[in-house]
This record gives sequence, structure tokens and C-alpha cells, in this order.
Amino acid sequence: MSAITDVDGVLVGHHHRIGDGWVTGTTVVLTPDGAVGGVDCRGGAPGTRETDLLDPSNLVERVHAVCLTGGSAYGLAAADGVMRWLEERGHGFRVGSGAHEVVPIVPAAVLFDLPAGQWGNRPDAGFGYRACEAASGGRPAQGCVGAGAGARTGGLQGGVGTAGVSTPSGYTVGVLVAVNAAGSAVDAATGLPWAADHEVDGEFALRAPEPSEGGRAGAVAPPEPPLNTTIGVIATDAALGKAQCRRLAGAGHDGLARALRPAHTMTDGDTLFALATGAGDPVADHRVLDELCAAAAACVARSVVHGVLAATAVPGSSVPAYRDRYPAAAP
Amino acid sequence: MSAITDVDGVLVGHHHRIGDGWVTGTTVVLTPDGAVGGVDCRGGAPGTRETDLLDPSNLVERVHAVCLTGGSAYGLAAADGVMRWLEERGHGFRVGSGAHEVVPIVPAAVLFDLPAGQWGNRPDAGFGYRACEAASGGRPAQGCVGAGAGARTGGLQGGVGTAGVSTPSGYTVGVLVAVNAAGSAVDAATGLPWAADHEVDGEFALRAPEPSEGGRAGAVAPPEPPLNTTIGVIATDAALGKAQCRRLAGAGHDGLARALRPAHTMTDGDTLFALATGAGDPVADHRVLDELCAAAAACVARSVVHGVLAATAVPGSSVPAYRDRYPAAAP
Repeated sequence: MSAITDVDGVLVGHHHRIGDGWVTGTTVVLTPDGAVGGVDCRGGAPGTRETDLLDPSNLVERVHAVCLTGGSAYGLAAADGVMRWLEERGHGFRVGSGAHEVVPIVPAAVLFDLPAGQWGNRPDAGFGYRACEAASGGRPAQGCVGAGAGARTGGLQGGVGTAGVSTPSGYTVGVLVAVNAAGSAVDAATGLPWAADHEVDGEFALRAPEPSEGGRAGAVAPPEPPLNTTIGVIATDAALGKAQCRRLAGAGHDGLARALRPAHTMTDGDTLFALATGAGDPVADHRVLDELCAAAAACVARSVVHGVLAATAVPGSSVPAYRDRYPAAAP
Repeated sequence: MSAITDVDGVLVGHHHRIGDGWVTGTTVVLTPDGAVGGVDCRGGAPGTRETDLLDPSNLVERVHAVCLTGGSAYGLAAADGVMRWLEERGHGFRVGSGAHEVVPIVPAAVLFDLPAGQWGNRPDAGFGYRACEAASGGRPAQGCVGAGAGARTGGLQGGVGTAGVSTPSGYTVGVLVAVNAAGSAVDAATGLPWAADHEVDGEFALRAPEPSEGGRAGAVAPPEPPLNTTIGVIATDAALGKAQCRRLAGAGHDGLARALRPAHTMTDGDTLFALATGAGDPVADHRVLDELCAAAAACVARSVVHGVLAATAVPGSSVPAYRDRYPAAAP
């Protein structure tokens, strides 16, 4: 599928509301049986929960879901609903003798989409719960869905994108991001995404516009106030330890650096999580880890491109989608 | 008062439920006008939210409340209610032109008290909201209240403690902790708290028991499973930058080291926040910061002692309070 759900055991669900003053949503990446987790937070304005436990020196190894959500810090409430959904099914860190005595581990990160909808309309616990109910192992919807419903980037609509790849060692790496960067994903001089060169098997289906076309379109003014933050998850079926997962998450930020200019600003809360579902001993050869990290960076870059290409105009918003702004290039 | 509320602009509120299968609660430390914030998380099993933004290299400087709560990771929901209370009053980081367009910054940390009550009974957003409604600048209640309602430590009841002091430079430092450590706050050989020597002005009112009395009482078996985690807030009226606040929070952990044996275990989520309410330029003389840090460490140690001394037997629990276990020493 070339998606995060290429990784066995990884499910994705979206829930969003668009219309009637609402433009926001939540995406959950579910690993109900637990995946070793890591995080790297490199934006200047993050909104997060349950990231401290992912420090490699800390106790808890396994994560049961990652919650990505709109709503700025208010949206952290969505993770409450993800926890409830997992608890009802007995998924979590065991803290007692009963099968129901679990504490689901649900790290979360938010993006800032509050100006996209009416004040007060942001994800709550119900969004997280419904995103779990919608989760499946199929190819996730992209564009203005889930946590990307209200996303914008560099004056264009942002959104959810996903990509996957097999590494030379035979592992699968998949990524899902919600692109809402203060920076731009598109080179205004050419009309092409900065990371278009990361394309695999013609996946972007872009047409190279005449240089004059790109120049004619020109730079797109960022919205005021600018929205911000790109958040995402990197998953792999390799067996990794927590410290290795943190490195994988860090490598993903190289993908953001390639796909967004600028990336990691003081108003971006850019945060990437890594989940490793593989059983057995962690990868021992650092060259294999480097392969996974390179794949993570590339898949993050590709996912950003997919998120922008899949985005569509949102009712009530004057922000154009890439496909409307650069029709000569768009697929 | 010798309390965290000695610091101007700092309010404290508790909300808890004890009885009918409930033994848990939430404590909020409110700085509605904003205080520069820092955090240091040194336990091996933390449950936190909004700690990444406190990194000194990140954008947001000011915190509007810290939420301390029981309920393990489920209890993070209490912070949703703290955010709502603050938003309704227009307190928060401004994100739009309207006075109501704010995002309250509410870092939070949890302690593990789930075995104290019936499964499923843990703080939700309503606990955080009601703790805010109860907040005042008076001397906070101590013992089995708020986040300390279900707290235990080393086989005794734990609880909330607070202490304050003036530094030689004329600043005020105040601390509030909820003591639920896996380790013990009491030297079983003497029956006295490890940090009894940090007493100021006879505040503990302890009587030194005969050595034989301490020996007779002997070590108290820790509960199985052990509860764990000590969380707290250090406040000062000095003007500090974010990096200085992080150092102040770190110094507080020296107080935990003195007051708890062991401290900072792999199952403790020990997390301390620091809030600086002072206006103007941050303290420039590192010796003044060292004074504040020494005061923070001492006040944390004293607060742990107060939390244990103030604890009382909780209905339905077989865990003794210090005053019942060591009557010859207790005030």
C-alpha cells in the first residue's frame, strides 16, 4: 500500500468534523498489543503528553497508541478517549492481577489549527474514541482528514500523508504525518514540492510545469496568524529498543527538514514518534539501524508531499489547496 | 504560613473523593497571570503532559497552572478541566485578537494510586475544574487531600505537604509535594523521618523516641504492589528565566533524595515543576540562583516530612499513618 499500515500490527483511524464551524480532527495510530516507542520533539512550541516515559532510561517500553490531534493543547483531551477505548479492550501496561487492570500508554502530540474553525470547536475525548473505532489496517485516507482536517502549510491546505518502503535488510518502514507547518512544502519558483525528488514509483504523478508557470503562481502568502506544527509517527516491523526508537524518530526530522522550508520554527511543535513492532532481540547491527533511519527520513519527506497533494479546499476556508493553486503541476 | 502560597500570586486548590470505593484526587497550583516555568523529571515511570514546551529552547515561557493528580495516566484528564476553568476566565497564551482566544498552559504529572480505590475510580476533567474552584492563597490543607488522597509511601500513608522559606537575598521559595514514593520517608531504626533534620522553627513537633521504641516498631513492609511517584511544584517570587526554572526544579530533586530512601526508582514517576512569578529581568547573579536552589531542596525535603506527618488513616485502607505507627515520635 505504501502506507504506515504496511507495518504488521499497525492500525490507523481518523475522526474529524468539517462544517458548521468545525474544521478539526484526530488521528490515532493503534498498536493494541504494544510497540516499543520513542519520540523526538524538535519544534519550538510543542503540545504533548506522555513523552517523558519514552526516555530510554525510563521503565515503560511499550506504547499502545499514538494520538495525533488538532485543537492545540485543548486537543490533548482526545488521548483520554483513546485510553478509554484501549482500557475497555484490556490493552495496556498491566498494573494488577485482573486482566482489566491496565494503564494504556498513549503518547500524544497536537497541532495548532484553532483559527480554522469557530473558537471552542476542538477535539475532545470523543474524537479519540471514535478515531479508534474507525481504525483499520487498510490504507489510511489522506489530505484533510483526522488530525489534518484543519491543517495548513505555507499558505496552502495541509493534511495527512502516509508512505512506506522496504529496506535492503527486508524490514518495512511506514510513516504517517499531519502537515501543518509554518513553513512551505512547495518551491514557489517551480510550483513543485521541495521533496518531490523523494518520489518512489511515480507515486506523486506530478507534471513539471514550465518554469514560467511556477513563477507566475509565485509565492503564496502564509495565513495570518500562521498555523503551525507537523506531527507524525514512524513505524517499523524491526525489533528495536527504546533508544533505537528515539534515534528513528530523530531521523524522521531529517525528512521534515527536506520537505519543509523553514522547518522546526519556534512556532512549530514538530514532534515525531517511532513505534517498533518486531519481536525478539533488538537489531544489533548499527548499519541496519542506519537503513531504517534513512528510510524513515525518506518516508517522512514523501508523507509530507502526499499530505499536501491530497489536501482539498475546505468549506468556508479561503486557503487554496495545492491542486487548485498549481493545476499545471498537480496530478 | 510556611507554604507554597507564601509566594505572591500562587493559589492552591484540592479536590478529592474518599469513600464509596474512591480514594484519589487532584491538586492544582494556579498562577492565572502566568509564571515562568520549568520541569525536571527524574523518576523512571513518569506520567506527564506539556513538559516538552518547558524546554528552555522552546517558545512558551509562562505557565498558568500545574496540575498534580492521582489516577496514574488516566488522571491526566484532570488537566483538561484546569484548562477549561482558565479559558473561561481568559487566562492563557494568547493566540488571537479576542480576549477569549487563549490556550492555557497547564503542565501536569500523575502519581500511581490506582490500587487504593476501586478500579475505574480516578480523577477526570471535573476533578481539575473543581480543584480550581477551591483554589485560594491561604495555607493549603496537607495530608490525604487532593493529589495525596490515595498516596502511600514505604508502607505508610503518604500525602500532600508544603513548606516555605525566605532566602538571604529576600526572595520567597515555597513548595508543595504529593508524596507517594516507593521508598520510605522514615528511618525505621529511629522512627524519625529521614529529613527531620531539615526542620525550621520546630515545625515538625516531633519527639525523639527512645532508640528501643524505634527498633521495636521496626521496618514497615511496603504495600504490594507498591504505589509510587512523588510530584510537586517549587514556586518563587524571584524573576527567573526558563533555564533557571529548570535548574530550580532539578535542585528540588536533591530534597527528594534526602527525604526518601530510595528515591527516584524505576517505578517512581518523580517529577518536579518550578514556577517563577517575579517581574523584570531574570536573576543575573548565579549565587542568588544557588540560594534559591538550596532553599528549594530544603523545602522539598520539609514538604515530604509534612506530607507524611499530616497523613491520616484512610477509610477502608489497612495502611497505617505515621502518627499511628510511631505514636512515641509523632506530634
